[in-house]
Amino acid sequence: MQSGRLSDSGPAEPGPRLRSLCGADQAAWASSLSEAEAEAGCFALAVAAVLPAGGSGERMGVPTPKQFCPILERPLISYTLQALERVCWIKDIVVAVTGENMEAMKGIIQRYQHKRISLVEAGVTRHRSIFNGLKALAEDQPNSRLSKPEVVIIHDAVRPFVEEDVLFQVVTAAKEYGASGAIRPLVSTVISPSTEGCLDYSLERARHRASEMPQAFLFDVIYEAYRQCSDHDLEFGTECLHLALKYCHIKAKLVEGSPDLWKVTYKRDLYAAESIIKERISQQICVVMDTKEDEEHVGHRLEEMLKNELNVHFLDYKSVPFGQTMENLMPIREFAKEVKKRNILLYGLLIYYPQDEQKLKESLRQGATIIAALIKERNSGLTGQLLIA
Amino acid sequence: MQSGRLSDSGPAEPGPRLRSLCGADQAAWASSLSEAEAEAGCFALAVAAVLPAGGSGERMGVPTPKQFCPILERPLISYTLQALERVCWIKDIVVAVTGENMEAMKGIIQRYQHKRISLVEAGVTRHRSIFNGLKALAEDQPNSRLSKPEVVIIHDAVRPFVEEDVLFQVVTAAKEYGASGAIRPLVSTVISPSTEGCLDYSLERARHRASEMPQAFLFDVIYEAYRQCSDHDLEFGTECLHLALKYCHIKAKLVEGSPDLWKVTYKRDLYAAESIIKERISQQICVVMDTKEDEEHVGHRLEEMLKNELNVHFLDYKSVPFGQTMENLMPIREFAKEVKKRNILLYGLLIYYPQDEQKLKESLRQGATIIAALIKERNSGLTGQLLIA
Repeated sequence: MQSGRLSDSGPAEPGPRLRSLCGADQAAWASSLSEAEAEAGCFALAVAAVLPAGGSGERMGVPTPKQFCPILERPLISYTLQALERVCWIKDIVVAVTGENMEAMKGIIQRYQHKRISLVEAGVTRHRSIFNGLKALAEDQPNSRLSKPEVVIIHDAVRPFVEEDVLFQVVTAAKEYGASGAIRPLVSTVISPSTEGCLDYSLERARHRASEMPQAFLFDVIYEAYRQCSDHDLEFGTECLHLALKYCHIKAKLVEGSPDLWKVTYKRDLYAAESIIKERISQQICVVMDTKEDEEHVGHRLEEMLKNELNVHFLDYKSVPFGQTMENLMPIREFAKEVKKRNILLYGLLIYYPQDEQKLKESLRQGATIIAALIKERNSGLTGQLLIA
Repeated sequence: MQSGRLSDSGPAEPGPRLRSLCGADQAAWASSLSEAEAEAGCFALAVAAVLPAGGSGERMGVPTPKQFCPILERPLISYTLQALERVCWIKDIVVAVTGENMEAMKGIIQRYQHKRISLVEAGVTRHRSIFNGLKALAEDQPNSRLSKPEVVIIHDAVRPFVEEDVLFQVVTAAKEYGASGAIRPLVSTVISPSTEGCLDYSLERARHRASEMPQAFLFDVIYEAYRQCSDHDLEFGTECLHLALKYCHIKAKLVEGSPDLWKVTYKRDLYAAESIIKERISQQICVVMDTKEDEEHVGHRLEEMLKNELNVHFLDYKSVPFGQTMENLMPIREFAKEVKKRNILLYGLLIYYPQDEQKLKESLRQGATIIAALIKERNSGLTGQLLIA
């Protein structure tokens, strides 16, 4: 018996993909919009996104800037681009990267076949990078293939789990209010220290929120804010909503975001992101078996045991003739190497299949434990191995 | 050739342990204190800790309260208790749990052999739970084995990575200032929403900090604050430093904490905690080999390759006679089952060992990849398997 795993990624995809809203899902989602919204044609609105990705990731404690850190061998920023790309009504995505990372970024775009991306040079601060992105979208840029959008989304390269619904919410709110941003409840109380390093006052947690991303703006509002804003703001500021308020007197509409909007900041966030990506990918498994009899029976029992452990979808049982001798290891390894290119992780699993009911149960339970371990860890270093239950 | 892994846990320990500061480390650390501090005898100071653990974990999106969620089969709170226990100068640890979790908590204390723990019933809010813990430490409690400490630490059950140095810092600052707490830079800008859900104002990020745990107080200060504090504070308040300021006019000394102090709040934080714990445990591996010749040679080459992938310490190479036939699978599995009780994960690894240098290199590289995968994932579901490089 052999257990393989299929991700839901397309064949041409060299790295893991996240779940995408498209086809039937997209249609179902769109139909949940009000009729007026549908008629107004949100999808007809010219929307672009700017992604500052010039940070050095000093808080991460690793030499690679965090947006380029690999998760399952794929750079973090590529997941974020994918999340934006799958939203068909975002026409252009402008990414600001430093000169030294420009070639690496071009390589990522090519390797993961990202579309609708334009690169601009990052500034030395986050605000300067965003400003450079906005300038590239402004109409007065010579030789630009980009056109000025009505609404611009500003997002972070290190927030890969942004969903279409929150993007839609900030965009529609920006169209109405001029500016909008996602917020989250505060996890810790916020305090203000005195100059002596003692507590001056603490803020009431319930009255404050963490300002997260994505944010969206009428392009003319945020571009004007950046054009007027002081050098001090460009150097030390961090909050686009603040600029819209200070320079254009626009009070942004705040939208409650999901916990998944959090920003990958520390090394532990990379671990968390990896586990979430694994969980999202590993929802389909395929069990290929060589049992000549009771195939359905054993398969179903294994499935029952696994269901208690995992939230997976069994694609199929297939009966394939395999011998059980050691010579058959090589075909499994070769096959595993082959399908890994399509992002399918394949392992062999030999289940001891005795007549004794108690022993069979034990064997199946062991098989379920092994499959659960392989699915949870999704480590490609173990593909092609023959495991024994 | 066989590769096994040894955690640094003691034999009697049924679950994973974190690195602990003791023996030589402890001495080295203590010697880094100033002479005055050593003479004043911080360790002679009567210090206790209160751990509110009555929360329901609603933000986690799982039915189990987060402090009881298992990480590598061991409840989160047990790691936190271990982190406090290894600090020998904390005399008592008072944990506040709800009535319905009281038996489960007693089971955890017994199973993981926690010492110096007293249980009290949690209140309906965090502040009420802490107050119950403080009452148990106050002198006027009848039939209590606890005695009133000079300084009390307040920590969260869901911050398992607290280190001795930050505990020492808040305790000594509390002794001097009356109150002290760990702080961290803000990751997101904090804003205040208007009643209409629009941006009212945003705070300057550099002038504010997140208030984290641990905190420490002169016992008389914090106990007095809780005794005076209003029902509204007990119901809706979240910040002990605020109570000390409001009711005892004590401006707490703020201490910069490490990123590891973060609070396990969301499901992603459980993932992060699991990865950090795995990383801390898996720093020792032992390779047991059955090669009759070139043992050192092959072992050293494998070690070199692994060093590039992992930060591990090779304990030893051992030469043990194993055959390479399938009959030898059973002894490996039995042995693996046996040593798993001592928290050692053991796997078999057969390395193809040809004369051809290129093929040998390929084989060793494959072996290193497999070992790296096993160490990174530390999943006990795969122990006892014979893997092939």
